Amino acid sequence: MNHPHPPFGAKRPFPDALLTELQSLLGERVSTKDAVREHHGRDESPFDPMLPDAVAFAHSTDEVAQIVKLCGKYNVPIIPYGAGSSLEGHLLAVVGGLSLDLSEMNQVVSINAEDLTATVQPGLSRKALNEALRDTGLFFPIDPGADASIGGMCATRASGTNAVRYGTMRENVLALTVVLADGRVIKTGTRARKSSAGYDLTRVFVGSEGTLGIITEATVRLYPQPEAVSAAICAFPSMGDAVNCVIQTIQLGVPIARVEFVDALAVRAINRHSKLTLPETPTLFFEFHGSENGVAEQAETVQSLAADNGGHNFEWATRTEDRNRMWSARHSAYFAMLQLKPGCRAVTTDVCVPISRLAECVAETEADLQASSLPCPIVGHVGDGNFHVAILIDPDKPAEIEEAERINQRIVERAIRMDGTCTGEHGIGLHKMTFLVTEHGEDAIDVMRSIKAALDPHNLFNPGKIFDMRAAS
Amino acid sequence: MNHPHPPFGAKRPFPDALLTELQSLLGERVSTKDAVREHHGRDESPFDPMLPDAVAFAHSTDEVAQIVKLCGKYNVPIIPYGAGSSLEGHLLAVVGGLSLDLSEMNQVVSINAEDLTATVQPGLSRKALNEALRDTGLFFPIDPGADASIGGMCATRASGTNAVRYGTMRENVLALTVVLADGRVIKTGTRARKSSAGYDLTRVFVGSEGTLGIITEATVRLYPQPEAVSAAICAFPSMGDAVNCVIQTIQLGVPIARVEFVDALAVRAINRHSKLTLPETPTLFFEFHGSENGVAEQAETVQSLAADNGGHNFEWATRTEDRNRMWSARHSAYFAMLQLKPGCRAVTTDVCVPISRLAECVAETEADLQASSLPCPIVGHVGDGNFHVAILIDPDKPAEIEEAERINQRIVERAIRMDGTCTGEHGIGLHKMTFLVTEHGEDAIDVMRSIKAALDPHNLFNPGKIFDMRAAS
Repeated sequence: MNHPHPPFGAKRPFPDALLTELQSLLGERVSTKDAVREHHGRDESPFDPMLPDAVAFAHSTDEVAQIVKLCGKYNVPIIPYGAGSSLEGHLLAVVGGLSLDLSEMNQVVSINAEDLTATVQPGLSRKALNEALRDTGLFFPIDPGADASIGGMCATRASGTNAVRYGTMRENVLALTVVLADGRVIKTGTRARKSSAGYDLTRVFVGSEGTLGIITEATVRLYPQPEAVSAAICAFPSMGDAVNCVIQTIQLGVPIARVEFVDALAVRAINRHSKLTLPETPTLFFEFHGSENGVAEQAETVQSLAADNGGHNFEWATRTEDRNRMWSARHSAYFAMLQLKPGCRAVTTDVCVPISRLAECVAETEADLQASSLPCPIVGHVGDGNFHVAILIDPDKPAEIEEAERINQRIVERAIRMDGTCTGEHGIGLHKMTFLVTEHGEDAIDVMRSIKAALDPHNLFNPGKIFDMRAAS
Repeated sequence: MNHPHPPFGAKRPFPDALLTELQSLLGERVSTKDAVREHHGRDESPFDPMLPDAVAFAHSTDEVAQIVKLCGKYNVPIIPYGAGSSLEGHLLAVVGGLSLDLSEMNQVVSINAEDLTATVQPGLSRKALNEALRDTGLFFPIDPGADASIGGMCATRASGTNAVRYGTMRENVLALTVVLADGRVIKTGTRARKSSAGYDLTRVFVGSEGTLGIITEATVRLYPQPEAVSAAICAFPSMGDAVNCVIQTIQLGVPIARVEFVDALAVRAINRHSKLTLPETPTLFFEFHGSENGVAEQAETVQSLAADNGGHNFEWATRTEDRNRMWSARHSAYFAMLQLKPGCRAVTTDVCVPISRLAECVAETEADLQASSLPCPIVGHVGDGNFHVAILIDPDKPAEIEEAERINQRIVERAIRMDGTCTGEHGIGLHKMTFLVTEHGEDAIDVMRSIKAALDPHNLFNPGKIFDMRAAS
């Protein structure tokens, strides 16, 4: 059964002559093997795979530029591919074309410790970057659940558990090298921390989901590793109590580094997957960064706010290995939740609302979920007002798919009604195209379409994603 | 003597019929009086005034949309006008047209204290916003020298002394209401703290200098007023010592709120203007925000770093009135510097470099300035790597103008060579158009041009600024 998706145009032809030219450029690094195409025609979304006609593995900006020129010559779409961890169908070759795999462009180009910047190739993963930074006393904070590529994280404007303190990819990319649709290469910025020099091209490409250009290098901001870190887990009587604790924390200006909500069902999944014994009740995971005294002070304030809101079982993880186990459990929540229902796929919601509406939004959502027969654990980056419901479906059961999409739609429409967004960090891809229109309105989408048409007039880059070009005015 | 500027096209006609239609829409709120046009045809840049044909005072988004449609009908340019504090010629009517004064759209639309957001009209000034926030325990941190309008600050991607801690307008605008060139009105975002919903339209307009649309509402981020604040002034033997102190502060991760550099000549100007008696030597102004203990700890760390770098006369301003006097002196530095040379105008540089290059960049710049006969005080937001040289010229002396532009060019080219930018916070306007090309390259400017052409095909909005459309490929 195909998961329902928006309509897209007919498959575009992939001429043999293009394959020949790509082979003469890349040799063995272009493939039409089924296994390779299958690997590149899927992601972590609920959609069935849609395979590209071929896969190319690029090794340099110059190669990417040549590949783009060749695909342009034959009017063949290009879908940039990083780690394959998209949740929204970004990587699916909806009208065929070339999957451009950038995972072998995974070098650290430079680390400028004095300036707190690193320049990296797009295929480098976030964990590999932090590995490379280990001896510098610095770290890169953006941490989506998966070990995503930096290029993919730029493309989806990703964030994760540290965003409440350190921001998202929106705030943490200083400059990009981008291959344009005609094969020209631009740099969108410098290593200066701020700039008013013309249009913000960096942020035109951050979040463009591969539809405007191919990112071949990124300069990102780094942060000094905090002198002291402490983390804690606290159980709450209800989700509302947990959320109120977070709102009060933010409003007091406590510079909390991480604050993650996990509902009772998600705690159960995490306990099973990571062999923990947390109380299976609404829970917050906290982390504090700062000086020894600063961390102690933050922790004391938050522990007192937690107590005011009925928090109990406040459990500290001060040793590095305890903290790592705790956050590794949180980061594996997605895969842990999938194991609640063997053979399932997840329809993952990603709404983000103003924090004043968060308790209400989650409470109404919980009522929806209780009325459903599907297991629907909730995790959330509550400091940002962002939470995920993993609606676990049997992809072979149309009724379950339909129910999941119905729940998803209610959650998204509720969030938009509360002046929030349909996606805090996963992007639109194929899955939220209709919601994007609800959120922004047709006129704003028209502006996006006109930018797309200006930068990629032949719709070469990742066609069929974010919005429907065919409706262009 | 006209200050030299880039070439622009012929004046565009302003038909009487348009004036009649504007009058029937706005009544007395459209003016062609010389005094009003003169007020709106100038700014704080070194350029001579260039007057608009008429000035309209809008009171609502709907009125702006109607004005835009009327101007579109007659192909007459529109230059949005806020507080008139541009330093780069943004407001000059280089090919004539209508100055659209938004200063009477100066209401706070809503303050959402729980969410730390405010939605305001574009003519509201930053000080007026903070006045409106006084009883909420919150504040809006972005503080350019002038009491600029929020709309103008969006348009130039402004920042100021707090950017090292709180970011710039790039990071602090959540959503805009924008009137497009065809009169349609869009909202670019929601009040959610983060979003991956399609292209980042908010940041397409932030920094677009009035060339892509008219901003009629902005939702900005607010911050809790810190529990404790302390400030200090410290004198250093040399600029290099002061800058090294700042680099070490940033690298240690001290969350310093403000750190401002003022050179000996600028201190002299400030002393005279604000009746202070600071030692006339390179000086840093510091401010620390946090809890009582946190502020004490930060201050202790920085005081010790300052001592390591030869800092002396460390003078604390802990009382609110002392701090206000200190920062008011710093904020009036621009006008204080102008008084160093009666009747002068300032050519103000605005480069921003990676902080590792800052000491070198300022030292080489100082050598340039010592070789000049012009008074050139320096102030800088050194935590960001951004500094300003105010080159004080007699606008009637061509040789001084020429020398100022020669110094400016050397400073900008040096900054770009050091992987920095020609403008950290003032924007491009008319004054840095050639430098924008040096910094970004023609191909990146072409991308900006194609975005401009897509959003404003008839070049209605602030024509002749940022880049030359006539060179469009």
